[in-house]
Amino acid sequence: MKINGTPTRTIWPAADGQAVEIIDQTRLPHEFVTVRLETLADAAHAIKAMLVRGAPLIGATAAYGMALAAKANPSDLALTVSYNVLHSTRPTAINLKWALDEMIKALGGIPESDRVAVAWQRAAEIADEDVAINSAIGDNGAKLIKAAWDQAKARGATQVNVLTHCNAGWLATVDWGTALAPVYKAFDAGIPVHVWVDETRPRNQGASLTARELNWHGVPHTVIADNTGGHLMQHGMVDLCIVGTDRTTRLGDVCNKIGTYLKALAAKDNNVPFYVALPSPTIDWTVADGVKEIPIEERDVTEQTHMTGKNADGAIVTVQVTPDGSPAGNWGFDVTPARLVTGLITERGVCPASPEGLATLFPEHA
Amino acid sequence: MKINGTPTRTIWPAADGQAVEIIDQTRLPHEFVTVRLETLADAAHAIKAMLVRGAPLIGATAAYGMALAAKANPSDLALTVSYNVLHSTRPTAINLKWALDEMIKALGGIPESDRVAVAWQRAAEIADEDVAINSAIGDNGAKLIKAAWDQAKARGATQVNVLTHCNAGWLATVDWGTALAPVYKAFDAGIPVHVWVDETRPRNQGASLTARELNWHGVPHTVIADNTGGHLMQHGMVDLCIVGTDRTTRLGDVCNKIGTYLKALAAKDNNVPFYVALPSPTIDWTVADGVKEIPIEERDVTEQTHMTGKNADGAIVTVQVTPDGSPAGNWGFDVTPARLVTGLITERGVCPASPEGLATLFPEHA
Repeated sequence: MKINGTPTRTIWPAADGQAVEIIDQTRLPHEFVTVRLETLADAAHAIKAMLVRGAPLIGATAAYGMALAAKANPSDLALTVSYNVLHSTRPTAINLKWALDEMIKALGGIPESDRVAVAWQRAAEIADEDVAINSAIGDNGAKLIKAAWDQAKARGATQVNVLTHCNAGWLATVDWGTALAPVYKAFDAGIPVHVWVDETRPRNQGASLTARELNWHGVPHTVIADNTGGHLMQHGMVDLCIVGTDRTTRLGDVCNKIGTYLKALAAKDNNVPFYVALPSPTIDWTVADGVKEIPIEERDVTEQTHMTGKNADGAIVTVQVTPDGSPAGNWGFDVTPARLVTGLITERGVCPASPEGLATLFPEHA
Repeated sequence: MKINGTPTRTIWPAADGQAVEIIDQTRLPHEFVTVRLETLADAAHAIKAMLVRGAPLIGATAAYGMALAAKANPSDLALTVSYNVLHSTRPTAINLKWALDEMIKALGGIPESDRVAVAWQRAAEIADEDVAINSAIGDNGAKLIKAAWDQAKARGATQVNVLTHCNAGWLATVDWGTALAPVYKAFDAGIPVHVWVDETRPRNQGASLTARELNWHGVPHTVIADNTGGHLMQHGMVDLCIVGTDRTTRLGDVCNKIGTYLKALAAKDNNVPFYVALPSPTIDWTVADGVKEIPIEERDVTEQTHMTGKNADGAIVTVQVTPDGSPAGNWGFDVTPARLVTGLITERGVCPASPEGLATLFPEHA
């Protein structure tokens, strides 16, 4: 999407063909810094330290990580080690494994001397496929925003209000985003869309990333505390919710950033449609009951006890917000049961969050 | 309650009898600073700038504010002006008006020359009455924690987990607290209680105040993002929720810190009991439907866009967490419908959140 008018992606091959470049998302929203990844270790660090985040972008970075690894050593053994190094960077995201498996598939059975070129090409394809998938998600989801706007307009509203949680925007993907792709498509089509941006503690991906990218592209938005959405829904101030997901089960349960479940409950309680936008590679056909089966990542508690921002002098500083000696907990994700999800927005269309719904769009997995 | 072993209240008459002293709660959790209130303006500022907060403590501070005002000018006209000044400091808290009305009742019809002494005495009584009410709430609520502990113990648990939102502890009252009074009573009785402390964005009253006072008193606790409670409840990690309230309607709807409604929805969805602890002066018998009738305070958006904490050097600094140019919204409260509330814990006992339930404990209002 656009940064001050310039179309930009989140990951791209360096001009010299020896590395890939990314936006260091830990420096957002206050600083725009790009980082050059030259080695497997660079790529693994970028994922683990969340310089890149968001399931699709993690997948693309892992794919390029395999290409960087192949450049150093294209042997079967080295690639197996590289696969394991990259696979262990984050436990929850299913795209990570998908992208790594795709790379192994592309590199298996071809001579070592061809592997670097093939790896670069397949990684670039994975990135381009993500863009195409997200663009299709955007087209499918924009119809829902258009329909909600038609209803809102008929009631005399001047805008259509979408609530989103965390960052499932273009910064979480290669381009377009998942949950925000429909917003960008609707906005670019002239629909007066306004986005309620959940701050998304403890890492603040809403306040720092979603707000940042909507702001860059020019989409009207308002940052709110994660506590606020229920109140807004009680008062008719949310027309629909659209969130992303790291992993969707074959029953339609949705694992996404911690707190998503609470917004889904509020949406249900107030008859607000709750949609989840996802590229089909994030569907985990091996898992049924998300609450019981999906392991939830526990992260460093300093994410909860501390907060980073810009001080009055413009310097980026970290402050402690809890008292000395008070313990903290930090679960990264929760699972929203399918019964609370109005529909899944995929690259193939929109379907109910159920095995039957998924079967209509993905009969090959039924 | 205790600060490092020393019993302490949140407001007390100064030793010279010319002022009242408070803890400046905006400096918590990192600094313990007391402030001397000498005038009506001091008291009004303390409430408006949230040096004191929490419905019962606001009430007590307003009562002492009237005493300070009477010291300067005990005339009817001056007291009426003082009433209005104090009443306009915060729009939502019903205790504020209740305490001010009590003071006017006490001062009406007595000679101006007696008013200062009577005002000091009535303000002290209001403070003592709050302590007595909260102690009774604690006794009534501790029975619920005890019962939950008995059940948890029978399942092999080693502690009973209470989730709370915002700060309804002794720092929000004169002593004991409302939602935390049962916790302190249970803890002091030897029950192994552990408290999940919602951070409570945007003002962080959980992370800064609830954690601070539990820490001082020695009660085991863990600070979590407001997004986390639903996940914990899905996994059996919460035995009961206890929150406070600024205002309860005669139908049992509960107005409390923004985000309370979301936790009540999650509790309902997971069969976790959701209790609201309240002193009966916070029941507004004139209001029925809380969602429709209670005005919700919108506060300065810098509470959302900025965060204050302690930097690595120990200095208190404020940082901006949203990008430049991104708007924010800041609603202070939401309303939890009575249907989501398991029971109301009052100084007279525990009752269902319904007109019939309230009538059993408060027949004089039925």
